[in-house]
Amino acid sequence: MNFASDNTSGLPPDIMAAITQANEGYALGYGNDALSTRLRDRIREVFEAPEAEICLVTTGTAANALALATLTPPWGAIYCHGLAHIEVDECGAPEFYTGGAKLVHVAGGNGKMAPEALAAKLAGAGRGVVHSVQPAALSLTNLTECGTRYSAAEIAELAGIAHDHGLAVHLDGARFANALVAAGATPAEMSWRAGVDALVLGGTKNGLMGVEAVVIFDPAHAWELQLRRKRAGHLWSKHRFLSAQMLAWLEDDLWLGLASHANAMAATLEAGLAPHAEMLFAREGNMLFARWPRGLHHQMQAKGAQYYLWPEGETLEGPEEEPVSARLVSSWSTTPEQVDAFLGLFAGGG
Amino acid sequence: MNFASDNTSGLPPDIMAAITQANEGYALGYGNDALSTRLRDRIREVFEAPEAEICLVTTGTAANALALATLTPPWGAIYCHGLAHIEVDECGAPEFYTGGAKLVHVAGGNGKMAPEALAAKLAGAGRGVVHSVQPAALSLTNLTECGTRYSAAEIAELAGIAHDHGLAVHLDGARFANALVAAGATPAEMSWRAGVDALVLGGTKNGLMGVEAVVIFDPAHAWELQLRRKRAGHLWSKHRFLSAQMLAWLEDDLWLGLASHANAMAATLEAGLAPHAEMLFAREGNMLFARWPRGLHHQMQAKGAQYYLWPEGETLEGPEEEPVSARLVSSWSTTPEQVDAFLGLFAGGG
Amino acid sequence: MNFASDNTSGLPPDIMAAITQANEGYALGYGNDALSTRLRDRIREVFEAPEAEICLVTTGTAANALALATLTPPWGAIYCHGLAHIEVDECGAPEFYTGGAKLVHVAGGNGKMAPEALAAKLAGAGRGVVHSVQPAALSLTNLTECGTRYSAAEIAELAGIAHDHGLAVHLDGARFANALVAAGATPAEMSWRAGVDALVLGGTKNGLMGVEAVVIFDPAHAWELQLRRKRAGHLWSKHRFLSAQMLAWLEDDLWLGLASHANAMAATLEAGLAPHAEMLFAREGNMLFARWPRGLHHQMQAKGAQYYLWPEGETLEGPEEEPVSARLVSSWSTTPEQVDAFLGLFAGGG
Amino acid sequence: MNFASDNTSGLPPDIMAAITQANEGYALGYGNDALSTRLRDRIREVFEAPEAEICLVTTGTAANALALATLTPPWGAIYCHGLAHIEVDECGAPEFYTGGAKLVHVAGGNGKMAPEALAAKLAGAGRGVVHSVQPAALSLTNLTECGTRYSAAEIAELAGIAHDHGLAVHLDGARFANALVAAGATPAEMSWRAGVDALVLGGTKNGLMGVEAVVIFDPAHAWELQLRRKRAGHLWSKHRFLSAQMLAWLEDDLWLGLASHANAMAATLEAGLAPHAEMLFAREGNMLFARWPRGLHHQMQAKGAQYYLWPEGETLEGPEEEPVSARLVSSWSTTPEQVDAFLGLFAGGG
Repeated sequence: MNFASDNTSGLPPDIMAAITQANEGYALGYGNDALSTRLRDRIREVFEAPEAEICLVTTGTAANALALATLTPPWGAIYCHGLAHIEVDECGAPEFYTGGAKLVHVAGGNGKMAPEALAAKLAGAGRGVVHSVQPAALSLTNLTECGTRYSAAEIAELAGIAHDHGLAVHLDGARFANALVAAGATPAEMSWRAGVDALVLGGTKNGLMGVEAVVIFDPAHAWELQLRRKRAGHLWSKHRFLSAQMLAWLEDDLWLGLASHANAMAATLEAGLAPHAEMLFAREGNMLFARWPRGLHHQMQAKGAQYYLWPEGETLEGPEEEPVSARLVSSWSTTPEQVDAFLGLFAGGG
Repeated sequence: MNFASDNTSGLPPDIMAAITQANEGYALGYGNDALSTRLRDRIREVFEAPEAEICLVTTGTAANALALATLTPPWGAIYCHGLAHIEVDECGAPEFYTGGAKLVHVAGGNGKMAPEALAAKLAGAGRGVVHSVQPAALSLTNLTECGTRYSAAEIAELAGIAHDHGLAVHLDGARFANALVAAGATPAEMSWRAGVDALVLGGTKNGLMGVEAVVIFDPAHAWELQLRRKRAGHLWSKHRFLSAQMLAWLEDDLWLGLASHANAMAATLEAGLAPHAEMLFAREGNMLFARWPRGLHHQMQAKGAQYYLWPEGETLEGPEEEPVSARLVSSWSTTPEQVDAFLGLFAGGG
Repeated sequence: MNFASDNTSGLPPDIMAAITQANEGYALGYGNDALSTRLRDRIREVFEAPEAEICLVTTGTAANALALATLTPPWGAIYCHGLAHIEVDECGAPEFYTGGAKLVHVAGGNGKMAPEALAAKLAGAGRGVVHSVQPAALSLTNLTECGTRYSAAEIAELAGIAHDHGLAVHLDGARFANALVAAGATPAEMSWRAGVDALVLGGTKNGLMGVEAVVIFDPAHAWELQLRRKRAGHLWSKHRFLSAQMLAWLEDDLWLGLASHANAMAATLEAGLAPHAEMLFAREGNMLFARWPRGLHHQMQAKGAQYYLWPEGETLEGPEEEPVSARLVSSWSTTPEQVDAFLGLFAGGG
Repeated sequence: MNFASDNTSGLPPDIMAAITQANEGYALGYGNDALSTRLRDRIREVFEAPEAEICLVTTGTAANALALATLTPPWGAIYCHGLAHIEVDECGAPEFYTGGAKLVHVAGGNGKMAPEALAAKLAGAGRGVVHSVQPAALSLTNLTECGTRYSAAEIAELAGIAHDHGLAVHLDGARFANALVAAGATPAEMSWRAGVDALVLGGTKNGLMGVEAVVIFDPAHAWELQLRRKRAGHLWSKHRFLSAQMLAWLEDDLWLGLASHANAMAATLEAGLAPHAEMLFAREGNMLFARWPRGLHHQMQAKGAQYYLWPEGETLEGPEEEPVSARLVSSWSTTPEQVDAFLGLFAGGG
């Protein structure tokens, strides 16, 4: 009954097998191996982007920060939602990697940026005024941090506003696969065709050990991105082990299958929760936010249910009857039995 | 016949088994899992340092840069050998992580810093002069980049000079295990007892997939080190997979056994090379540098021998009879047969 | 009729005389001259702070950024009002100098931070959570960017909350003298006695050519502050010319007299405006914000009135009858005649 | 008898008059005043560079660091002489401003870079190798830190090598005027016509209070340079006072006259020293280095002679008869009487 995060799961058998297989023999380091070449070509194929640059790193924080630093000068402003992972959960990594860029919050409900709010912020941004940081990048997350989803059309609308103001567009795709299968769109439709300039294609939350691909669609950024990765200590020597995982993941649409399963488990969870709890946001992927009395949280956690309260800082101390919110995340490894067991805690305790 | 680097090898069976085993079930992320706690305790035990802080990252560049940034302010000077990895091979990672510290070269033969050269540099360093960067850290590498070795006494002498001038001492131990078994010393003797304040304990070059431990012996630095790691995107979510590897590696002295084997293979290689090639430095671990005619390099590489010419920038273009240097590195996976095959190229071609 | 800013004025005669006088003979550079020593002692005396460190620089942006960087690590959060000069008007200087700290906005009316808003932000700040930037400093401005004023008691309340959470307190005193005379308080009461750890004592907006003093009350920060100033290129070689100005300014309370005059001129302006315009904030120093129809702005500017519309981005394009806000700033050199002439534009045109 | 530095002098009367005159009335800040426009046009005229961008700052350290940061990415290498001011005397300002670039030393006698040494360094620089910092800029100083001088042809040769390798060329012209008059060349010949991309035109050491102009000849860099200046807190609000000084300085070739005088005084000093002291380098401007017994230094300093021993760290403690070196700098304000008085100390004491 672990719904704490999709990164508390391990690796599916096919990925583990790919690691074992990659372990044979010798291979040149730093991405100069055959698997890494194959992966680059495969990602280009999957994204219908024959000139894209691909850089693998092992955390989403690194991937986001490297992508943003490649798109944003030190005096740049990055426009993001106030709940964005880059703002809230990365201990200032974007500021570190960019050399001090500023994250500017754009409002919007359900963790999604409102186009008119973005337009208004950009209109008052002080472009060309030497006293102001200069608008440089738009950063979106899909799935969002609230578990909601941007459609390709919504991304295109925001990206269009951004491009009209000369900004580059970054997409934090820690749960890109979950968004993709929910949308029934192609990778290209959900990224560069919608105006995304740099995508973080997240593998870790969807079955890999620690593999994220920064995909930059404009090859003019390729060399800078590679230098930034090395300089940050994110260029793996035994690079084949990263590439092997992602290759296996992209094989036969495994990645989409894993994400579909995770989304389906969250849907089951949502349906079962409906009688017992109040939903905070629309569930559109593998993550949901719901609220029920604190006393019940106590009982559930005592019986082994694992999940985080929300927002950060929320605690189990307080009146028992007061509603307290939880974030519940399913993954590729969540089973119907685990969902049932979790829901059973409501039946028994509610 | 791959002697290009000890990072071209894969993982020994016990390490792979540890990964497979760690894959069971769920585990909290970011080091809040049981294996990570066990590893921390184990490293403290191995190093007889019950208060040491341990931070795992996945590259040596990251480990060195994080350690140095924790010891050095932006206006600090880091004293290192001109051939040091941090100076030559990390694309400015120390400068990036420290916020612009300066690497100052200290001379010495065989890749080893001369104590008198260090003392002289520090004497003229401008401590207390506002126009000068301020001496902050000494950085040593053991094994050195030339494959030579500092004894514990030599480290202690250099560290003593450093401490007398108020510097902290960093040891790049990408090949720490190789140095350790060559010295027959304990981990404590080769680190904090000799004056090392921050050690990078390298696993990647000695059989791990990508695991390096920053070991900081003064717990006052612990929190800063953790924040810096997170901020750099080097805090793994599925952290158990890193810890599991290093735990297995430290089990029953596996790490020392792997390093001993690598050193022994290099010794065999050295002995076999003696009639055919000129050694550049004393071989004291698993790395040797030797010189023979360019024409023979051509023949060997045509027959599949893999290694790098040295120094960087050296090429196979030029007179056939001119001596050209090579760097040869053995690893845990090097076999006597591979060594023999390599040496056979001399017999046949020389 | 120049009310654009208090930095459009020149220097009063006594300051110019001090520059001329300082020009005699030779003097050692970088603050090692007699005038600089005298100034340091004088500021310590004026602030009743015998151990304070004083560093002169020539812009407020530099002074604020240096002070904040000395108080805040790269992973730190700086709490400021959303209208703060450090957030809005310094092109990211605090981020640059700190190495990427984050400015977090605290709400409050009239440009003043609300204590409860600060307390709430700090309560949810994630101190001790490695994924969050760590609360490090509170930054206040007095006079505020809205021309309002914190009393010593109000500063003490906010600083108390900050100190309770382990933050250091920075005060942007670009118009410190204006606040001081309005309060009728002593420099000590408005700074360290109210909990300020680092003060920017602004001279430029109050009659100097370009002189700001960073005053840090804890001498433990002294050396770091000096190194940061040098490293940023803000240590003047002909330092005597800065010290001479500020010495003359502090002589016989000249600085307080200049500020009193500026405040008085703003009060006259306010009184004269009352029948014609709507005030936006309480006028408490030498700066006021008022609103009147756009058409009248057109007429006034055509007749030579100089001032900025507010907020930034506001323009003279639009309906003539629509009210548009202006920021009006008086200075030491503002004359009653200038105020009358300005007010006359309303009489004639309104 | 002050030969400590050309920055221990004050301002000539014409410069002081220009300041006084600029003090009349109101002027918009931040360079938006009439004098600043005039100065920009005047510098373009003097340098025959109608598109050059000019940014005034108040220290040489700031000017150098801003220019270098505009030319060099964070992962760049800057090639300079080991005695360069940017390496030795700026407390790491170039590293701070660039975000961590690396300064690489190029050898050469008399403080001047040897072309073959530069070519050799660049040949082995690892361009295109992701593990290496990437060659980005050449930095020369003229006059050099040893008081010697590059001719236009020598600059052109070095700049040609640099350009062939894709580097930009920076010239630290803290004593540009002294070099210029010694060469009898035009400003254009000694800068962009010789291949200089960014010049620091130093005013402070040649009679200004604290004014240095960064002149960038490629207008593509203009906006970045302005943003970097603002972000570093080097954009003056009362900018007219900087522009006024430099305008007066360029008027009627005053700057060249001041430099010629300084050079002539140094020549007189050199001639008088010849019988008593050993010269270390050729004197080619207003700075000379000479060596005589320590005992005589004692006597001279006791009689009020002011100068620095050389190199930094040299002291008056030691055997009386041992030769100790001194750096002697003349300026616009050095008089023949001061030179005579200084030389008289040898006559009397030697």
